[in-house]
Amino acid sequence: MDCVLRPRAAIAATILLALASLGASAASAETQQEANRKAVLAFYEKGLNQKDADGALAYVGDRYVQHNPNAADGPDGFRKFIAFLREKFPNSHSEIKRSFVDGDYVILHVHAVREPGTRGTAIIDIFKLENGKIVEHWDVGQPIPENPANNNTMF
Amino acid sequence: MDCVLRPRAAIAATILLALASLGASAASAETQQEANRKAVLAFYEKGLNQKDADGALAYVGDRYVQHNPNAADGPDGFRKFIAFLREKFPNSHSEIKRSFVDGDYVILHVHAVREPGTRGTAIIDIFKLENGKIVEHWDVGQPIPENPANNNTMF
Repeated sequence: MDCVLRPRAAIAATILLALASLGASAASAETQQEANRKAVLAFYEKGLNQKDADGALAYVGDRYVQHNPNAADGPDGFRKFIAFLREKFPNSHSEIKRSFVDGDYVILHVHAVREPGTRGTAIIDIFKLENGKIVEHWDVGQPIPENPANNNTMF
Repeated sequence: MDCVLRPRAAIAATILLALASLGASAASAETQQEANRKAVLAFYEKGLNQKDADGALAYVGDRYVQHNPNAADGPDGFRKFIAFLREKFPNSHSEIKRSFVDGDYVILHVHAVREPGTRGTAIIDIFKLENGKIVEHWDVGQPIPENPANNNTMF
């Protein structure tokens, strides 16, 4: 050792180490959260826009718990939904307006248009991830009205 | 000085200080985010459940940008909406199922029931805060259907 720390310096070093450990763990959590966001954005683009269900399901883990009341549970329910879009609304497009991350969850605020030129639907999706893979999905959708009570748009 | 750091120790100390600073700023961001979440939960309880618009508006900042297409802009639009609930649906209740925080944003997943005993509506709200006060609101609402395609509920 080149030096011996005085008691107060030792306390300061302990605090510094604790903060450094917090900093390192915050940086690691941040990295995982950003990876989660990227996985959900890729899932959405592959599935909803490219209508490639199996490409999208590469981002899904060992289960896909579906809470959207119009879709059957599991990966097969998702495949059926994408097949429906591909057949009935091949030009449908979902534009992600903003995304949020909180721990294992990613939230998307989406403008979905099934027929180009129509007003479309406002959707907010919630995805839960485990080990970087999507395992659960909730969403809420509302048609965008013709005459809103304010001029701020739904986004 | 009681000691002089060797070059490698100096580099290690610099990294430690950077991590410590990251840790301190992560802890501070966490504190602000939890304060934001508490403000939004209190706003919701005061407004939507207790139907005390002005009590709720105590959590609102210098503006309230409204994106819900059924509500007029600003604090007065919110007052009118709460007055409507108080008059037409005095027993309406909103149960917050989960909440998320990401920086200046708080997201709520809500089960809103206007008439007790009815299925109600699934809602996801997004609030933006500035300096701990709510300044902007988006939401999407969808009636809970009688016969969903899966057994997972909308929550």
